[in-house]
Amino acid sequence: MKFEVTILGSSSATPVYNRNPSAQLLNCNEKFYLIDCGEGTQQQLIRYGFKANKIDYIFISHLHGDHYFGLIGLLSSLHLNGRIKPMKIFAPAALAEILALQFQHSETIIRYPIEFEPIQADTPSMIFENADLSVETIILNHRIPCTGFSFVQKKRLRKLVVEKLEAEMVPIEYYPLLKRGVDLELPDGRVLLNLDYTTDSEDPKKYCYCSDTLYDERYLESIRGCDTLYHEATFLHEMLERANQTHHTTALQAAQIAQTTGARKLLIGHFSSRYKTLLPLLEEARSVFENTELATEGNTFTI
Amino acid sequence: MKFEVTILGSSSATPVYNRNPSAQLLNCNEKFYLIDCGEGTQQQLIRYGFKANKIDYIFISHLHGDHYFGLIGLLSSLHLNGRIKPMKIFAPAALAEILALQFQHSETIIRYPIEFEPIQADTPSMIFENADLSVETIILNHRIPCTGFSFVQKKRLRKLVVEKLEAEMVPIEYYPLLKRGVDLELPDGRVLLNLDYTTDSEDPKKYCYCSDTLYDERYLESIRGCDTLYHEATFLHEMLERANQTHHTTALQAAQIAQTTGARKLLIGHFSSRYKTLLPLLEEARSVFENTELATEGNTFTI
Repeated sequence: MKFEVTILGSSSATPVYNRNPSAQLLNCNEKFYLIDCGEGTQQQLIRYGFKANKIDYIFISHLHGDHYFGLIGLLSSLHLNGRIKPMKIFAPAALAEILALQFQHSETIIRYPIEFEPIQADTPSMIFENADLSVETIILNHRIPCTGFSFVQKKRLRKLVVEKLEAEMVPIEYYPLLKRGVDLELPDGRVLLNLDYTTDSEDPKKYCYCSDTLYDERYLESIRGCDTLYHEATFLHEMLERANQTHHTTALQAAQIAQTTGARKLLIGHFSSRYKTLLPLLEEARSVFENTELATEGNTFTI
Repeated sequence: MKFEVTILGSSSATPVYNRNPSAQLLNCNEKFYLIDCGEGTQQQLIRYGFKANKIDYIFISHLHGDHYFGLIGLLSSLHLNGRIKPMKIFAPAALAEILALQFQHSETIIRYPIEFEPIQADTPSMIFENADLSVETIILNHRIPCTGFSFVQKKRLRKLVVEKLEAEMVPIEYYPLLKRGVDLELPDGRVLLNLDYTTDSEDPKKYCYCSDTLYDERYLESIRGCDTLYHEATFLHEMLERANQTHHTTALQAAQIAQTTGARKLLIGHFSSRYKTLLPLLEEARSVFENTELATEGNTFTI
């Protein structure tokens, strides 16, 4: 099952050096989840060959503009391009008001349902679940209420050893039960032990997105043991004081968090406009946590 | 005196084919005026090498998103980048409310003054004037209230014939009076007739911006005799019915308007996403009005 994330924006605060504000596109089993939506996200989707209309779920971490100013344009374009299927948006409650005011003054009646789910940024909670994954909030510590998101795949069904089943002429009608781990007694009296005819599926993967936050141990439990951790790394550690003032994290701290919580891979992003080149941030993080990558525009990471 | 316009966006409704929604940057004597501000305008300014902080005046024609969704991001970035000088915004009144709501929820207190001037889209009126130009509204006919803008240069002072003045040892203190067209009597008794020592300055130029509108003869008087007319040309004339339904203009109509009103040059833009290539629109307009150009991204036109 495909589970990968494509970076659409890696810049904090303002667009600069061809870096766009925050946005990521998560593909889980060919369902598309947009995480944050800075200005120009719809243009980035076009640039990297994604159809915006495939997105059915949008998660907005907080109401600083670099994380949502592109949303109204994206929703408007979907309307103009004839979308009819619903869009589910998880975001701070005030965003519904902001969208409504803009639709009102353009006299736009969006022709597809926008299902708005307000997020309470106080305790971690599951806010969404379908057959592929579940999503829990991560309570971050920023200047305004801000939540990260933890995307956890569902455990897949067991895999059939099809060659053996076919060789022994097991009727295909029994396959679904075998996939679910059931031992079988067939009408002809044969008993099939599940473990002889199936193998375990892959362990479900976990992707955590920590958008804007001060280093704070309280959210570490929420991101423990994730396969890929995206964590903001706005500054080099020499700017720790500035990071603390603005409630952001340094590359070194992001790496320490990845190490402490047992992440397999770390993606860093949300880079300050003061950094024209990003190599120093990458090197600083790798000095603590080797398996770190820059979450820069157009790159896709398998989780 | 420099008087030129750079196109930052040429797309109607949605960004497509690397075309961005409407925005233009007018440079009059090194003062910068932004006209409309679709999503991604701040990125376009960076792309084409303009400093956003040089802009002191913003004119928004109407509240369809493709003409203003980039404004909040631009204003936020100016704030984050330390702007302190005022920004004057001319726009429909509701835009102030839309901006305020977004600043409120990001807990942003903009550190430079935003001087908001609401536009009444009912009768043509002068809304701005400085030493370089004046700006009048053009009452367009769109689905929601929409105004174009007519930028008219001030008549410049007379040009001195400096060689002659120097040869005759006329004291430099008299130059400002000569520039203003005054005849002089010098202390030594010489009489200088102004016409002997100055030449007329260039005629002031006029740039008209007609963003979104149905063909409507009522606004033609406002744009009569302009040097450069920007007029939307969303569709080819074969789509006239669709143009009428959506209150837009065809390329043929835009050219007829340029001809009827005696424009010297026509720029067409606001192209529908149905047109991957724009040559048919240009050819259609040129069949009526030869001096037509495509107002596409990154092109600068001297007015």
